[in-house]
Amino acid sequence: MRKPGCPLCDADGGHIVFAGDRFRLVRADEAGFPAFYRVVWNDHVAEFTDLGAADRALCMEAVAQVETLLREHLQPHKVNLAALGNAVPHLHWHVIARFEWDTHFPSPVWAQERRPAETARIAHVNGQLPRLEEALRNALEARPGNCTPS
Amino acid sequence: MRKPGCPLCDADGGHIVFAGDRFRLVRADEAGFPAFYRVVWNDHVAEFTDLGAADRALCMEAVAQVETLLREHLQPHKVNLAALGNAVPHLHWHVIARFEWDTHFPSPVWAQERRPAETARIAHVNGQLPRLEEALRNALEARPGNCTPS
Repeated sequence: MRKPGCPLCDADGGHIVFAGDRFRLVRADEAGFPAFYRVVWNDHVAEFTDLGAADRALCMEAVAQVETLLREHLQPHKVNLAALGNAVPHLHWHVIARFEWDTHFPSPVWAQERRPAETARIAHVNGQLPRLEEALRNALEARPGNCTPS
Repeated sequence: MRKPGCPLCDADGGHIVFAGDRFRLVRADEAGFPAFYRVVWNDHVAEFTDLGAADRALCMEAVAQVETLLREHLQPHKVNLAALGNAVPHLHWHVIARFEWDTHFPSPVWAQERRPAETARIAHVNGQLPRLEEALRNALEARPGNCTPS
């Protein structure tokens, strides 16, 4: 179910890490946050409770899987999870690794920035992303209920 | 399991709507947002994935129950869900009814405010909260796995 004109129906919404038949995982290009991912539900639904209980569980266990691997690979100071959708009301879960040195910590990524970007530290995290994303792809492909379309 | 000095171990974190043995629901006093709730996990854990899969499901179905009743009672323009915890790393889910007229919409509640508070509209929502919160309490008490402590 797609809605013409919706940015997350018309486009992937970021760099595809995993594309399943129910949801996809994309890396967002948000300046200053090198490990900012989104679990995007493929069908156009606005609210989390527009999904039934089984789909909510499928979706949140994917979010939890992403969080688990972000923690294992990057040891962030905190992980932030959020489904807002005020501007783009198509269900997507932000899964963001936060570091004490990032531009906004401990503020939310949507608040005022607190300090300049630490380019060397961002580059270090960037260097870890290929292995992280391979692990993410493998883990999400192995989960029941979200096959890769053939 | 409590951590001395943690604001969500030492205090409720808001006006108690429902207190169960695994989690509680509180209404936060956040200026300009009359229906800003938090599902607070009682044990001190920092990340969503510090919970096992069964507890994650219990927690998120409580979040979904709160969202469902916010939608039924208040017809918000959008519901926002978030577990951030950068400042207070004790698992709590923000469940926030957002309205097109609120001070920040469509920005996140943590971003810059866009307009003055509409006191008459806020008062109208406030008037709906007693019935909403009675429904929330009844629904959460009826859920398996989170008995009210006797």
